[in-house]
Amino acid sequence: MKAKVTLVDGMEFRGTSGTGHTITMDADAPVGGRNAGLRPMEMLLVGFGGCTGMDVISILRKKRQNVTGLEMNVKGEQQDDYPHIFTEVHIEYVVKGKDVEQQAVERSIKLSLEKYCSVGATLAKAGTITNSYRIITE
Amino acid sequence: MKAKVTLVDGMEFRGTSGTGHTITMDADAPVGGRNAGLRPMEMLLVGFGGCTGMDVISILRKKRQNVTGLEMNVKGEQQDDYPHIFTEVHIEYVVKGKDVEQQAVERSIKLSLEKYCSVGATLAKAGTITNSYRIITE
Repeated sequence: MKAKVTLVDGMEFRGTSGTGHTITMDADAPVGGRNAGLRPMEMLLVGFGGCTGMDVISILRKKRQNVTGLEMNVKGEQQDDYPHIFTEVHIEYVVKGKDVEQQAVERSIKLSLEKYCSVGATLAKAGTITNSYRIITE
Repeated sequence: MKAKVTLVDGMEFRGTSGTGHTITMDADAPVGGRNAGLRPMEMLLVGFGGCTGMDVISILRKKRQNVTGLEMNVKGEQQDDYPHIFTEVHIEYVVKGKDVEQQAVERSIKLSLEKYCSVGATLAKAGTITNSYRIITE
């Protein structure tokens, strides 16, 4: 897996993934940025949501659950000292659908966080991951 | 720090960072995706390049180096077993400029990887990070 990241100007960088997708990263104004893109550490939280979301939706589909929507809210607490790694990450899963079984949701989250999700497993090496979920009937 | 990630359809997810930036993630075709966006694990490599790039350019500017371009090429090797974390990550820094001092480049990379870069410190908990650099006179 590959990526190329290039300075645009100021603190703005453009990243291109090996699969050909481009994104912009930038810093806050106090450190010379202009908020033209994501903070690099936000990339970890967004990537975590995508990673575990793909696992959870795949598993729920295999379990023939009638899921109409899935959303992950991710929050990270960073340590005060350098490097500001995430010491605590909480992820809330919001599953929308009809007759979605609580047990299926719990099982899919557990499988993702304990077995499949590579971004989650990486974050879990640096800090603690906690989770919660809500099921919304539509 | 926060993020929200929402299922679009198939394996496509839209992520929005707490600072208000949106990106698309998707899976490969063999696992039901359409490559509409980055793989979640690519987010880590792109984020790493941005994170350390911001450190390195800041330090080189403080050292009054005449840098006209900075590029990071990042490669990650994933373990075969689940979860497919990066066991090895190599980052190549390409610094372009005039009279850029080798010692300043080495020092900036060392400071970023050993002290400041939070994404790098996270990846270093899961695997080994190696680096190299090239200085191109423009």
